[in-house]
Amino acid sequence: MKKRPLIFVTNDDGVEAAGLQALSDAMRQIGDVKVVAPLHPMSGIGHAVTSREPLRLKFFEKQDSYEKYGCSGTPVDCVKIGEQYVIKGKPDLLVSGINHGSNAAVNIIYSGTMAAALESTIGGVPSIGFSLLDNSHDADFSASQEYVVEIAKKVLQEGLPEDVTLNVNIPAVPKNEIRGIKICRQARSRWVEDYEQRMDPGKKEYFWLNGNFELRENAKDTDDWALKNNYVSIVPVHFDFTAHKFLNHFKNWENHD
Amino acid sequence: MKKRPLIFVTNDDGVEAAGLQALSDAMRQIGDVKVVAPLHPMSGIGHAVTSREPLRLKFFEKQDSYEKYGCSGTPVDCVKIGEQYVIKGKPDLLVSGINHGSNAAVNIIYSGTMAAALESTIGGVPSIGFSLLDNSHDADFSASQEYVVEIAKKVLQEGLPEDVTLNVNIPAVPKNEIRGIKICRQARSRWVEDYEQRMDPGKKEYFWLNGNFELRENAKDTDDWALKNNYVSIVPVHFDFTAHKFLNHFKNWENHD
Repeated sequence: MKKRPLIFVTNDDGVEAAGLQALSDAMRQIGDVKVVAPLHPMSGIGHAVTSREPLRLKFFEKQDSYEKYGCSGTPVDCVKIGEQYVIKGKPDLLVSGINHGSNAAVNIIYSGTMAAALESTIGGVPSIGFSLLDNSHDADFSASQEYVVEIAKKVLQEGLPEDVTLNVNIPAVPKNEIRGIKICRQARSRWVEDYEQRMDPGKKEYFWLNGNFELRENAKDTDDWALKNNYVSIVPVHFDFTAHKFLNHFKNWENHD
Repeated sequence: MKKRPLIFVTNDDGVEAAGLQALSDAMRQIGDVKVVAPLHPMSGIGHAVTSREPLRLKFFEKQDSYEKYGCSGTPVDCVKIGEQYVIKGKPDLLVSGINHGSNAAVNIIYSGTMAAALESTIGGVPSIGFSLLDNSHDADFSASQEYVVEIAKKVLQEGLPEDVTLNVNIPAVPKNEIRGIKICRQARSRWVEDYEQRMDPGKKEYFWLNGNFELRENAKDTDDWALKNNYVSIVPVHFDFTAHKFLNHFKNWENHD
């Protein structure tokens, strides 16, 4: 581990989020920090990338070994443009978050926070996404910060296997109730939608998303179980979507010579 | 297979895309078709879901067993709201595409087309994403349509394993040059960005994305290899991001009792 590693900080809740501040503050304890985060909240933006519109970068502040920018695009855009124009190369570590709300179980697929971390891993940088299970604006990140520093230090010291990102979720309980770190797999789950149909003042209908989380298993090796039992869950994740164990299942579909 | 299965058609290139029309036409040969697609092109939107803004549904046309709607949201929104307000339940099959351009290799992670198919699988519906390796507006989908019908019929007859989606990519060559179907895994690859920095008339800088695709392997069992060799590639994919083979690697990070 370098004496002062260069750490890229981003998120999907935007430049003004308390979770971004908590993560930046924690990282400044252990490294030089450059922040490039979306100008606006982008929760649920997934792995969206902006290609049909131009992007803007907005300078916020600079103090010694700390710099902060906002980007008009998505979290994935922040990673891409931040490396080219702010970091001007690759950082030693990218951390994303601390997200206001869970990115455990199936939530990862909708998450801009985790998309940023995955995008950074695609580019070859060790990367971690952090989330606290509290959606509120004034969530208390103090207990989280201790785990964030511990896990970031471990990654800086040991590195990560190629193409592997860490998805870290932290239960929203006081520090003395957290039972430690648990290595988990992603719990099977889904969101079941129930849009609310409403009428606007012009008598045209519109719809608001109103989903309910549905857990499809309760196994002790899943992130959802760990979090319900007050553990910090770490799921090692990757961006290979191949369902390898079903490759043979389809082999007889091949009809070539 | 039911005599007239109900088929949900969507895409990420929007209601006006030629690929959507080609896919709808192909599906009308084998089933009742309901289309709910984004009102605007949404290529690269990933698994974004709209929760902070209301959605609108716009009726386009209805003929016998065919209905078409546009949705103001993303491809994933189309799946969610389409099931609740257009299908009013679950279809027998969801097909997404035909995308104008490749969703092979790492492209899947940015793809709205594949996000729609994955979202539908999360909800328990057999789902397929189709892409033609031709980005142009007037791409020729005639050879694709034959494979689309063949593969859709197979899925309607045989079903798919739980939580498995098919990612089908079709080479942009004349029909007689296509060598058949090949079952593949996702090729390791990445996009390397090189944003163009420009100045607007008001002398403020902006940036346009300009990426280059970088292949990281050339193995014969990958989708990229198959497509370069004129095969239709099918990758069975899933939405479990867990890097299962690295769960043990991190086991000694656990620090709980």
